[in-house]
Amino acid sequence: METAYLSFNQITSDNCSLEEVAEACVKEGVPYIAPWRHKVQDIGVKKSAQIIRDSGLKVSSLCRGGMFPAATHVERQVRIDDNRRAIDEAAELGTDVLVLVCGPSPDRDIQGARAMVEAGIEALIPYAEEANVRLGIEPLHPVFAGDRSVISTLGQANDIVERFASPQVGVVIDVYHVWWDPNLYQEIKRSQGHILGFHVNDWIKVTDPLTSRGMMGDGVIEIRRIREAVEAAGYKGPVEVEILNDKLWQHPCQETLKRIKERFLEYV
Amino acid sequence: METAYLSFNQITSDNCSLEEVAEACVKEGVPYIAPWRHKVQDIGVKKSAQIIRDSGLKVSSLCRGGMFPAATHVERQVRIDDNRRAIDEAAELGTDVLVLVCGPSPDRDIQGARAMVEAGIEALIPYAEEANVRLGIEPLHPVFAGDRSVISTLGQANDIVERFASPQVGVVIDVYHVWWDPNLYQEIKRSQGHILGFHVNDWIKVTDPLTSRGMMGDGVIEIRRIREAVEAAGYKGPVEVEILNDKLWQHPCQETLKRIKERFLEYV
Repeated sequence: METAYLSFNQITSDNCSLEEVAEACVKEGVPYIAPWRHKVQDIGVKKSAQIIRDSGLKVSSLCRGGMFPAATHVERQVRIDDNRRAIDEAAELGTDVLVLVCGPSPDRDIQGARAMVEAGIEALIPYAEEANVRLGIEPLHPVFAGDRSVISTLGQANDIVERFASPQVGVVIDVYHVWWDPNLYQEIKRSQGHILGFHVNDWIKVTDPLTSRGMMGDGVIEIRRIREAVEAAGYKGPVEVEILNDKLWQHPCQETLKRIKERFLEYV
Repeated sequence: METAYLSFNQITSDNCSLEEVAEACVKEGVPYIAPWRHKVQDIGVKKSAQIIRDSGLKVSSLCRGGMFPAATHVERQVRIDDNRRAIDEAAELGTDVLVLVCGPSPDRDIQGARAMVEAGIEALIPYAEEANVRLGIEPLHPVFAGDRSVISTLGQANDIVERFASPQVGVVIDVYHVWWDPNLYQEIKRSQGHILGFHVNDWIKVTDPLTSRGMMGDGVIEIRRIREAVEAAGYKGPVEVEILNDKLWQHPCQETLKRIKERFLEYV
């Protein structure tokens, strides 16, 4: 795919600051960036927004809100409040997409936790509407069902979107999380009109599932086929490269970006 | 659950020989055992069958056949032949259930690999019928979709079973592989009449997904709820405890069995 759609998700160079990442994107002619909240908070939202404005980069999304389920009502409310701050930060950083990683269950009741996710999203809709920020439910690979998200399939995410039928709620599709799904292509079709983001990387031999994502082309995912299906479902926005890989974090971000551009052209 | 249904899956004490495991089962009053082919082959099928017969243990299943997809027709045929040997071994060891771990794709075409799985199972049915051995399709957690099985959900396994509509083909349900599935309970219902085995263990914080399964009660799976659903779908057979865990492999099998019996009563 042409790099005009390329967005550099900041976690791919988690070893670098927002300033370094923005500079590398400008040098490499990458038009979009996707910041993460922990990096933004390192230097503050105001300064982060300034860096991005000065760089002329567009922001494809902010990672991440979510983490809704919790053992008590009070704690769930604390999470909602934090999501409201995330919505404000997204708006201030110049994006209208907040990615939601929905969170694990506080106990063994996974269905109960799924209900808490829906209640959390519902509670955020009016605030998101006012801020003109959309909530992108990102289903996470089932390997993360115990510690990161009880929303494990695009089908579940689509169910939630359809239930609320709000322009504020959509899905974010990451090939790493969905490639294995026997219902993938029908669920991508069903996402038509509410795809808020698309992430690429690859599935290589997993050691730690969190930090062993692959560079596009190194693994087993049919990335181009999935990208074309996402496009056919009407998505014309930026494509984020998001690779959590501890080996990659030993390289300067500009070097990483150069490799990404090559692979993006060849495999996405 | 009462330990009258307990089957000790041999991989749980992969550090011990079949003879040691069988002896520990007898001492602990565990009625069933589930051998693995690599351990059986260490000492030969004949001797393995003798050990099991002498112990008086019943055999709940043999692990494992499968691994159908391959790049060439010749290699796929080699796999079929190996599965025929596995069927013979199951019969000789005194069980009518061969567990199928269906295999990964030889390339990026996961749908093509799924078709190869179906073709492989279809090719085995007449042989299995003659040997009076049933083929239990075990869906594997999607974390293994790249290196162990392209059959990732109970829904897929049920689809295959329904397509062949042969008494020789059914499913094996392992809580580790299916607990995260939003369609789990409806798919368990759909398995009614063709559940050939049920495996328990737990999902703990995953480091290496292959060797960090948990002891029942240590993780997040609603084991009893799933067991009751499997029973409600008509399964009345043995319940295999199958825990692949490298820490557990440092303990003598009798010690492991004692812990398992306690946990089985409390959590299964």
